[in-house]
Amino acid sequence: MTTTLITGIGELTTNDDELGRLSDAAVVIDDSRIAWVGPAGHAEPADARVDVGGRAALPGWVDSHTHLVFAGDRTAEFEARMAGQPYSAGGIARTVEATRAASDDELAATVRRLVREAVSQGTTYLETKTGYGLTVADEARSARIAAEHADEVTFLGAHIVPPDTGADDYLATVTGPMLDAVAPLVRWVDVFCESGAFDAAQSERVLRAAAERGLGLRVHGNQLAEGPGVELAVRLGAASVDHCTYLSDADVDALAGSDTVATLLPACDLSTRQPLAPARRLLDAGAVIALASNANPGSSYTTSMAFCVATAVLQQRLSVDEAVWAATRGGAKALRADTGDGAVGVLRPGARADLHVLDAPSVTHLAYRPGVPLTAAVWRNGVRDF
Amino acid sequence: MTTTLITGIGELTTNDDELGRLSDAAVVIDDSRIAWVGPAGHAEPADARVDVGGRAALPGWVDSHTHLVFAGDRTAEFEARMAGQPYSAGGIARTVEATRAASDDELAATVRRLVREAVSQGTTYLETKTGYGLTVADEARSARIAAEHADEVTFLGAHIVPPDTGADDYLATVTGPMLDAVAPLVRWVDVFCESGAFDAAQSERVLRAAAERGLGLRVHGNQLAEGPGVELAVRLGAASVDHCTYLSDADVDALAGSDTVATLLPACDLSTRQPLAPARRLLDAGAVIALASNANPGSSYTTSMAFCVATAVLQQRLSVDEAVWAATRGGAKALRADTGDGAVGVLRPGARADLHVLDAPSVTHLAYRPGVPLTAAVWRNGVRDF
Repeated sequence: MTTTLITGIGELTTNDDELGRLSDAAVVIDDSRIAWVGPAGHAEPADARVDVGGRAALPGWVDSHTHLVFAGDRTAEFEARMAGQPYSAGGIARTVEATRAASDDELAATVRRLVREAVSQGTTYLETKTGYGLTVADEARSARIAAEHADEVTFLGAHIVPPDTGADDYLATVTGPMLDAVAPLVRWVDVFCESGAFDAAQSERVLRAAAERGLGLRVHGNQLAEGPGVELAVRLGAASVDHCTYLSDADVDALAGSDTVATLLPACDLSTRQPLAPARRLLDAGAVIALASNANPGSSYTTSMAFCVATAVLQQRLSVDEAVWAATRGGAKALRADTGDGAVGVLRPGARADLHVLDAPSVTHLAYRPGVPLTAAVWRNGVRDF
Repeated sequence: MTTTLITGIGELTTNDDELGRLSDAAVVIDDSRIAWVGPAGHAEPADARVDVGGRAALPGWVDSHTHLVFAGDRTAEFEARMAGQPYSAGGIARTVEATRAASDDELAATVRRLVREAVSQGTTYLETKTGYGLTVADEARSARIAAEHADEVTFLGAHIVPPDTGADDYLATVTGPMLDAVAPLVRWVDVFCESGAFDAAQSERVLRAAAERGLGLRVHGNQLAEGPGVELAVRLGAASVDHCTYLSDADVDALAGSDTVATLLPACDLSTRQPLAPARRLLDAGAVIALASNANPGSSYTTSMAFCVATAVLQQRLSVDEAVWAATRGGAKALRADTGDGAVGVLRPGARADLHVLDAPSVTHLAYRPGVPLTAAVWRNGVRDF
């Protein structure tokens, strides 16, 4: 066990209600935990000392929605979309085919590469999903590879109905042997509740089977049109409903009156030429929001949480503080990882030592300087990782 | 004189009408020039050899519009804008005050830092402007510092009327002793033709004085509302009119029928909460467009040309090829640097050896993967610079 004093932090965003934002601050890391946060002048010596030269620091990004276990290429589909072709869930089948054909090593290499890319941009806690296998063996393999590289794993067998399969037969598999196979490897179960994927009753069937086994619930909903996803997620107590691009007033009210986090995916909205999700309307109503990348080869092939934050500020009318919170503590809430020992998305004694140092004097630069790579240093779970 | 063979280029975008786009290509650099472009298997040996492992390559970005000679901080103004305060040209005065108070070394350090930041993101040819001095001595100093670090320098004494000065008196200075002082240091003269800065007659006075000395003309116009900037620029044969956010049909027609490039600044549009400039409408009408960063501390504090390209594709309905061309050869055209020996924005024998290698198999990834830093290697004027 060694301790590290990180000092010379010009502006420290803690996301802790009592600590707030500090100037000229320091943090002490003890093994994988934050041991101390306070004014630089009050810090005790530690085994090692790093001076970050007045730079701003904040909790590492918590990317609560990614799909990294995949193979194959969908560049042509992206190009066709940019030429005017609408997005549909159908492209997922292409990735399923390539993923099934890939070796374990190929899949693991892709996950490793994208996690490394994310970490090098300040992401320190990352969820990823299955959902490109869609057979018992392929979903179990995806869950295993995901669990080797991500902090949280979600089973998304109910991503689409695979070609040449009936929906009812497939759901019997998803809620039966497939769930049996993945349950030891995952914390969450998700369903794509959308036209072209699963309707409300089918989605509820998946979520109820998951809840019966004590797994946490997540929902993909309201991505391409208003629909039943939000209502279902709130009613069943899902931790998060993701996308929320098209919301009725009733959806906004339901989210505001619930513990279900509305996870917004602005890079996906842009990449599928949808409107940007109504982030301001959700916050004004009192809902809790998270920002996530939705990294996947079809609808959002980016790992850049900074791009999501900049978009949320420049175009979705969040303040920088609101957007940064949503991409850190908001993501942690969406993963129910925001409290207790090892909490993420927050910097306070006992939290996981996940620190993101910026090549900038304040977090404002994340939106003020869009596109500029601003990650100067990253500590992840107590280890300097960039 | 040494030659370098850069091979293993999976996809090479040359921007040359005859060479087009090549697969499995190579480039030979001889000193500061491209000596050869062709299929990898046909390349002759060179003194040095670099294999880029199948990555995509393209001409370096030509950033034809930046304001890098400044001091001071405008973070608070950005935050106020994000909270709803409209952008106005008035904030420029704040930067003028800080710039005048700064030492030569401070100003040069800022320019150097931002040029380095731009190069590390693939920019290889960069214009920058004066315009935060607004006295004879301060503008001459800014021009001198700009000329030491940028490829092209523009005199923008007519940025705003400095506080406590009458417009007529100030324009007499700009078109007289100030122009005398900077003329040996600059190639271009620019004027901010906009409500709150200079009207059409005042702008024309500046541009005519510049033309009389044989300097090239540029115009900031149509940024915050429709106005006379485009008409003036086209009528006087300016190389470029920059911003073009608000255009009448007559403006679009005028641009389409001229050699004046419409330089669009999407990061500025977003950062000032303006609509994005009508890029598609301009291209469909037959106008030539460039994309540039407008890097400056007030309205667009980014050096990221990749962010501009991604925005143009995702939100301004350009194809990736159109956006990449506008950010390379389009910028070169806006600077009249696109032809002859040492041409930029194009890769062909005799062009300047400015090569940008991406951590991606195709240029499409610049829009497909927004926010992800994709610059793998940069050769600038024949020298490996990142």
